[in-house]
Amino acid sequence: MNSLDYVLNNIDSLDRESMDEAKKRLDRLIKPVGSLGKMEEICMQLAGIYRKKELDTSKKAIIAFAGDHGVYEEGVAPDPQSITYLQFPNFTKGLNGVGVISKFVGADVIAIDVGINCDHKLDGVIDKKIRKSTSNMAKGPAMSRDEAIKSIEIGIEAANECIDNGYKLIGIGEMGICNTTPSSAIISVIDGCDPAEVTGMGAGLKKDRIKHKADTIRKAIELNKPNREDAIDILSKVGGFEIGSMAGVILACSARNVPVVLDGFISYAAALLAYTLNPITREYMIASHTSAEPGTQKALDMLNLSTVLNMDMRLGEGSGAALAFNIIEASNYTYTNMATFDEIDMGR
Amino acid sequence: MNSLDYVLNNIDSLDRESMDEAKKRLDRLIKPVGSLGKMEEICMQLAGIYRKKELDTSKKAIIAFAGDHGVYEEGVAPDPQSITYLQFPNFTKGLNGVGVISKFVGADVIAIDVGINCDHKLDGVIDKKIRKSTSNMAKGPAMSRDEAIKSIEIGIEAANECIDNGYKLIGIGEMGICNTTPSSAIISVIDGCDPAEVTGMGAGLKKDRIKHKADTIRKAIELNKPNREDAIDILSKVGGFEIGSMAGVILACSARNVPVVLDGFISYAAALLAYTLNPITREYMIASHTSAEPGTQKALDMLNLSTVLNMDMRLGEGSGAALAFNIIEASNYTYTNMATFDEIDMGR
Repeated sequence: MNSLDYVLNNIDSLDRESMDEAKKRLDRLIKPVGSLGKMEEICMQLAGIYRKKELDTSKKAIIAFAGDHGVYEEGVAPDPQSITYLQFPNFTKGLNGVGVISKFVGADVIAIDVGINCDHKLDGVIDKKIRKSTSNMAKGPAMSRDEAIKSIEIGIEAANECIDNGYKLIGIGEMGICNTTPSSAIISVIDGCDPAEVTGMGAGLKKDRIKHKADTIRKAIELNKPNREDAIDILSKVGGFEIGSMAGVILACSARNVPVVLDGFISYAAALLAYTLNPITREYMIASHTSAEPGTQKALDMLNLSTVLNMDMRLGEGSGAALAFNIIEASNYTYTNMATFDEIDMGR
Repeated sequence: MNSLDYVLNNIDSLDRESMDEAKKRLDRLIKPVGSLGKMEEICMQLAGIYRKKELDTSKKAIIAFAGDHGVYEEGVAPDPQSITYLQFPNFTKGLNGVGVISKFVGADVIAIDVGINCDHKLDGVIDKKIRKSTSNMAKGPAMSRDEAIKSIEIGIEAANECIDNGYKLIGIGEMGICNTTPSSAIISVIDGCDPAEVTGMGAGLKKDRIKHKADTIRKAIELNKPNREDAIDILSKVGGFEIGSMAGVILACSARNVPVVLDGFISYAAALLAYTLNPITREYMIASHTSAEPGTQKALDMLNLSTVLNMDMRLGEGSGAALAFNIIEASNYTYTNMATFDEIDMGR
């Protein structure tokens, strides 16, 4: 049940009947038809995912993965690589961005190491380390095909465990210094555009270094020649362990009928990998916020998704997904608790 | 203290020193500088408004005003006018859009009748009725200049009372069948554009009637010739009682150092009136969501505001403002509770 093949063969489209049932209720709420916009769309989507018109979004979690990147040595990030292992234990303690926001919205955070460049045990972190950092994609493939599949399957396993434990709403998050670099690479390969179009400052790269970052990505793509129709090939050649695991969560949520909330730029790359593996996964995704990275619109357009939040955030971690949990819950609460024209005399 | 003149003379710019203090804390949180985007901007704005770096957004309310419109008889709305008095009592009972969402976010709703076209007392509604509906602006001014000032002063009084009662975050809402018509009129006058550019379906007007709606607005403007630099003149000639009162809330919040959260299209019209009366009011506004009405971007551009939510909502009532309360509180919670580099070893 945790194998990639099994999951890929068990993803069905949303249940139209439940969506229609939800639409019927939405149209009887005391408001003009459709006037709650995306709040209504979210409820219909949730009904289609859960395959029933009663929605439960109370138990929710961010599943976050961390890994380091060989391409770091090319000078594509402003921060020391040690930030990955220094920051990741804060995820489950309510101390960093995603930790604090998750606490505010009542979500749990699950933190999984899939490739942090450190030897010591990290407090509050589940150890599923594949290898201490990927290889430098500017010099060869970031990982083997087997490692790529393994990274996805770790994500599938994590999501399945959460779903078995009753989580009804799952968001994806990550940590990994310089991981906007493989993300831009993945998005540029799948879109077929030049890396410069989808490469930005990440966590705070200086303007004059962004061209170098795009050049590095272009070099890695030219060297490794990923096949844009083969997501595993793309992931192994220019991806990252945590990105593969995030794609795995999306796949498992899709197979298990659980909505999956995207975060920012890195999660778009993971979403595009999942979408390339099986396009139905798109129906299970909720886009939280519009990342400040360039390439955001391209990625969201390919996925045909539109975000609910427009916060100019570029923190990652899962912080935007956690923030959007609130909007999703508010949508469900409104759908469930608003009065209908049958209950109240509104002259019709 | 509730007079328009008094308030207009007591609006100061935000406190730079408190904003700088907040910025200092934000820059010490364990994240890349500025990476929380608008969450950070909101916290700096709140600090500037409250004039201290400690933020308290716990006690919050939507102040909603309802009024009817003489222009209704021109056939500019799909719903019966009675919906105004039928829907308004639901605001304080947690039954309609703004009521349910306010309950979810823990906000109170205060509902004030400033001009509903009915004679009976409405349950849960404060009676400050100026007159049973404005006059038909397609045949003459919607109201007298005195009535326009009175509508604003009712808003000022309501906000002052809330602030006296400890509310720290105030949103504006409204109810009034066909009130996108005066709102489009106000926005078109202040922008100087043709009404067709800022006129849309409102609560659900059929496509072939939107041209008639814009023609009606154009006729009203040509007939009444509002002076675009005189907000009271615009309000009296092509406005509405509830729109004046919403502008009053914005003015009072600005004078009393309380942030005011805009809702959708009708609140943009109120905001533009307040801004025309005193441009500093803009600094006290937080734009919640991007309304689905055309003219939205024009209005937000004039106010130089950008929204946090992109929900395609067009319900009004204050529903979008209530939903944004959550994002504002999450921002404050994050600012207040996230760890700093001084507390945690992050290698710097």
